[in-house]
Amino acid sequence: MFQVGIIGAGRIGKLHAEHIQRTSMARVRAVSDVNMQGLDTWASSLHIPVVTDNYQDLLNDPDIDAIFICSPTSTHATIIQEAARAGKHIFCEKPVSFSVETTELALQAVYEANVMLQVGFNRRFDHNFKKVRDTVQGGVIGEPHLLRITSRDPEPPPAEYVAKSGGLFMDMMIHDFDMARYVVQSEVVEVYAQGANLIDPKIGELNDVDTAVVMLTFANGAIGIIENSRKAVYGYDQRIEAFGSKGCISTENDRPSTAVISTSDGVMMDKPLYFFLERYTQAYVQEIEDFFRSIQGEFPIVCDGNDGLQAERLAQAAKESLLTGRPVKLNHVTVLDRKSL
Amino acid sequence: MFQVGIIGAGRIGKLHAEHIQRTSMARVRAVSDVNMQGLDTWASSLHIPVVTDNYQDLLNDPDIDAIFICSPTSTHATIIQEAARAGKHIFCEKPVSFSVETTELALQAVYEANVMLQVGFNRRFDHNFKKVRDTVQGGVIGEPHLLRITSRDPEPPPAEYVAKSGGLFMDMMIHDFDMARYVVQSEVVEVYAQGANLIDPKIGELNDVDTAVVMLTFANGAIGIIENSRKAVYGYDQRIEAFGSKGCISTENDRPSTAVISTSDGVMMDKPLYFFLERYTQAYVQEIEDFFRSIQGEFPIVCDGNDGLQAERLAQAAKESLLTGRPVKLNHVTVLDRKSL
Amino acid sequence: MFQVGIIGAGRIGKLHAEHIQRTSMARVRAVSDVNMQGLDTWASSLHIPVVTDNYQDLLNDPDIDAIFICSPTSTHATIIQEAARAGKHIFCEKPVSFSVETTELALQAVYEANVMLQVGFNRRFDHNFKKVRDTVQGGVIGEPHLLRITSRDPEPPPAEYVAKSGGLFMDMMIHDFDMARYVVQSEVVEVYAQGANLIDPKIGELNDVDTAVVMLTFANGAIGIIENSRKAVYGYDQRIEAFGSKGCISTENDRPSTAVISTSDGVMMDKPLYFFLERYTQAYVQEIEDFFRSIQGEFPIVCDGNDGLQAERLAQAAKESLLTGRPVKLNHVTVLDRKSL
Amino acid sequence: MFQVGIIGAGRIGKLHAEHIQRTSMARVRAVSDVNMQGLDTWASSLHIPVVTDNYQDLLNDPDIDAIFICSPTSTHATIIQEAARAGKHIFCEKPVSFSVETTELALQAVYEANVMLQVGFNRRFDHNFKKVRDTVQGGVIGEPHLLRITSRDPEPPPAEYVAKSGGLFMDMMIHDFDMARYVVQSEVVEVYAQGANLIDPKIGELNDVDTAVVMLTFANGAIGIIENSRKAVYGYDQRIEAFGSKGCISTENDRPSTAVISTSDGVMMDKPLYFFLERYTQAYVQEIEDFFRSIQGEFPIVCDGNDGLQAERLAQAAKESLLTGRPVKLNHVTVLDRKSL
Repeated sequence: MFQVGIIGAGRIGKLHAEHIQRTSMARVRAVSDVNMQGLDTWASSLHIPVVTDNYQDLLNDPDIDAIFICSPTSTHATIIQEAARAGKHIFCEKPVSFSVETTELALQAVYEANVMLQVGFNRRFDHNFKKVRDTVQGGVIGEPHLLRITSRDPEPPPAEYVAKSGGLFMDMMIHDFDMARYVVQSEVVEVYAQGANLIDPKIGELNDVDTAVVMLTFANGAIGIIENSRKAVYGYDQRIEAFGSKGCISTENDRPSTAVISTSDGVMMDKPLYFFLERYTQAYVQEIEDFFRSIQGEFPIVCDGNDGLQAERLAQAAKESLLTGRPVKLNHVTVLDRKSL
Repeated sequence: MFQVGIIGAGRIGKLHAEHIQRTSMARVRAVSDVNMQGLDTWASSLHIPVVTDNYQDLLNDPDIDAIFICSPTSTHATIIQEAARAGKHIFCEKPVSFSVETTELALQAVYEANVMLQVGFNRRFDHNFKKVRDTVQGGVIGEPHLLRITSRDPEPPPAEYVAKSGGLFMDMMIHDFDMARYVVQSEVVEVYAQGANLIDPKIGELNDVDTAVVMLTFANGAIGIIENSRKAVYGYDQRIEAFGSKGCISTENDRPSTAVISTSDGVMMDKPLYFFLERYTQAYVQEIEDFFRSIQGEFPIVCDGNDGLQAERLAQAAKESLLTGRPVKLNHVTVLDRKSL
Repeated sequence: MFQVGIIGAGRIGKLHAEHIQRTSMARVRAVSDVNMQGLDTWASSLHIPVVTDNYQDLLNDPDIDAIFICSPTSTHATIIQEAARAGKHIFCEKPVSFSVETTELALQAVYEANVMLQVGFNRRFDHNFKKVRDTVQGGVIGEPHLLRITSRDPEPPPAEYVAKSGGLFMDMMIHDFDMARYVVQSEVVEVYAQGANLIDPKIGELNDVDTAVVMLTFANGAIGIIENSRKAVYGYDQRIEAFGSKGCISTENDRPSTAVISTSDGVMMDKPLYFFLERYTQAYVQEIEDFFRSIQGEFPIVCDGNDGLQAERLAQAAKESLLTGRPVKLNHVTVLDRKSL
Repeated sequence: MFQVGIIGAGRIGKLHAEHIQRTSMARVRAVSDVNMQGLDTWASSLHIPVVTDNYQDLLNDPDIDAIFICSPTSTHATIIQEAARAGKHIFCEKPVSFSVETTELALQAVYEANVMLQVGFNRRFDHNFKKVRDTVQGGVIGEPHLLRITSRDPEPPPAEYVAKSGGLFMDMMIHDFDMARYVVQSEVVEVYAQGANLIDPKIGELNDVDTAVVMLTFANGAIGIIENSRKAVYGYDQRIEAFGSKGCISTENDRPSTAVISTSDGVMMDKPLYFFLERYTQAYVQEIEDFFRSIQGEFPIVCDGNDGLQAERLAQAAKESLLTGRPVKLNHVTVLDRKSL
């Protein structure tokens, strides 16, 4: 059983801890957070023996095999470097950092330490999206020509969150950039972004957008589209469609039930599952199980450091495109060799 | 071009006349109705040259090849016999009569005159139901084991109509009895009926039911279910499911559009097409085209006199079952040889 | 935390044990099975401290609050009586017994001991079926008029299982009898059954059927239909439709993904989840959580002894109907007062 | 009854003629085509009295009220001008011309002659797309934020057709440009296009693309996406989705039947209707009925000259964007005042 240390006990840190405690592959040995309030009670209810406000304690603990980095994004890169040097395997929440250069430095440390790093793009582990990836990979739709990702949140985050989020492309669409690469299995060579502030004026005041569309051109000739909105009043809208020379695969949202109710008012179905915690429950479980399986050598890391880096590059390019009003080519960015990560 | 005479210019008679005028296979030469009000105007708008209140005029017209009998059910059998003796091909609305014996006499006349008779079970010509029949016939679902027919009207007819209708089994479910035979392609050997008066007390006062379920046992071992309701508040509900050793085919209702609207209230689709005129528009056209094609010898009558007779037998048996509270076997009823019809 | 003893460590006993160990409401203290092979290893992997081949040990253990009866059906009634006398709350797998009289005796013991008894009709806890029940109860479809339950297994059980199963009505359709009462919320007053041996000749040799349709007449006037097949080649088919004066609710099967693949061959979706373990994973978890909540007094037992009894009465009546070829009325059967259970 | 002259008796000219002969609002008085082969036979079967190889005969016929221009695109603008001067109302197939300037001249003539001009964007009359437009216009989805149009043909046209087509944007996507304006009800201010030659190398040799995505920015802030492929192996793919502040509406393809077939291979539905003649049968009928109703003054022309012009401007801008690799703004193009058309 792997022994795990969790750095950052916010919502996502706690979620991972609960899932780890349920697997038969690992146990949480320690958790750290700068805010210790209520942490003891929560930890003891999950049988987590060690609680600390200093994450260095976790890095120094020789019994800990793997670190989950769930602290704020601004701390990720530093902790990755430290954890790598301490010889720990690393699971890091997305994004690795807000800057491609910073991420590259972190990955370099991972590479040198020869530890494993998985980045938390949880959607790769969703039953629907995995089916799309597997279908494309299996050649069922032939050569990919068009890709379309719809990604809409049920409501915008508070302004304070937006201010520190890195912007829509880095905070929200970064999941979709990763999904695009995961499904098409080719690198993006050009990005063109359009965005608008149509939902919450506060987001506009922070120089961010809440509605955006990005067009991607892939090295293999395929063209992709990503649509984001911070507010879909009917709930979390997470769909994908891949079209190719031999066919098309598309997915619908998951709903609480399959019930269809017909009345004099119309024919009604359930709204989609409300948000990511509801929709991706199973994906979060799968994500950590696959992480431990990769450490055991069963298969390569499903979402590695390079994947994290490439998504950030696309987010950065999209932001540049939005600011300049022009498409942005991506061949000018230095990429670490995939194998080295 | 076939020359057609239409007896009875009510709603369905007029509908057939309009469809005939649009085909390139036939023209309406004459129409008769005991109620001549407004008939001239309507007929002239459709370029129908002859209008009369005496249907014998049509039977005596040597230029007329085929007669459409759209008058009240109580007149069908007599007119069939007369038309057959006059050497006309016959399209007769359902049911042929309210009594198996009467229908048998009419069919005997058709047989002796060697004319063609098609009975107006329009649903055989519906795109969805025809697909089910063809799929079953093609062996795609293997041997049929279970059949389920859902048939619900959007609102009950007025009491005056119900009083003369022959009852729910003969008036409404008769379509479904025919559909059951059409799809399973085996005769029914037992009928068990349950019914209730749950919708309109006036229907109960007329000793009729407005809600009914009938279980059918087929000669090939399959078991069928027919569900009827006189009132589905969401519109005309016409679905079927056939299950067999190799699979299952089921159909959904047709709707005015495929639109799906998602709002904070839920996810909404269109209600089914309102009633039979909306749902079976294309089926009515196909029905008469196939009638003329059969007269031309392209293929046998799709829905012949025996089909009309068998549906009536099932309706009669269902009524008997409801009255006696017992299943009714069908082997005691004499059936004319199918080929002779 | 409730302490639980599990009697019978077959597939379903083990399943419940795993789910119990994951809740925060209870722990498995002991497990018994006449076949001890491999039991120690399995139990220790789940941190179950006590393993025995004598279920009396569990009944005698004062620390155990509740007993899960997962042994063969023929043993249920006796164990219920013993457990009740030992003052344990009881969760019993379905059916309680193969005979209404035997079940009544068991329920009498439960009543006298004033313990709680939940019967394992897991489908009441399924997200789709619960939605139907809640929608009907909420009055959204008005007064129920028609109910339809489709229940088809992906493949028939082995002949040895069938021989001891009590027959299709008691073994398989009993779930649907319970579902019918759960949704319509009215007792059944008449049952008419048709059945056939269309799938596996061995089942016929055991005087059982593998295909059956049962028509139910409810006290409130509604009519219900249950369809069973032991073999749906496309997977576990579990659907329901309730139709009433104000509308209709119907559910579809759950599928592994929502993906739709369009190729030159057609438009393809996933098959339904394969069988009950896949389909009802979440329902099994909910079922035991609700059991413990009922013991805590949060709400009455969702599926109590009377529910178990009524389902058996319907199974018995269906069998009688099939044998006699006649509808069977249910008012002649003595029923214990619901409140007393 | 309006008397109609049809110029150009190719596939689409013949189609319109047949539909006109079926309405009660108009009759085809004359048809012209430079290729007279077989024209007499066809015309007489439809009771069209006059056949000629000189379209001027139609313009000179004082009994003709309206002209349908179904000749090659290169002739449209000249004939519009001549027909307008002859005082005929005009229905012109899309596009009006291959050049914005040419179209503007033609529209000027229409304006000066004060005749009515409808452009043949048939999809505005499709049941699904009209539902989307009406829903957006009714405010059901609130302010439009995102629009997505999927438009894929089942197979590419022959190279000879492509060579004269004006290119994918002017020939195929022009329908979608019109649809975008029709649904969002705001003008496009910027266009960015990506395209590729992924299907048929011959199309590439003609300097055309067969796969393209265009991003549109609307004056009201909404962002739109149009996807085109010349080859969807599963059939004509025509879908739309509009997302706004209060919800989302999306449409699916029409299919020949609603049947769902479940076998051991999977769950299968019909492919979409094959191509535009199958999919838009009813839209073509509605299109001409609405044209005659507009002439009668019942409502304004649904798709007028300005609509034709704006779609061409977008096609031209998309082509420019593809060639230059940059987004193209549209405010530099002079637009005739909408009212003047």
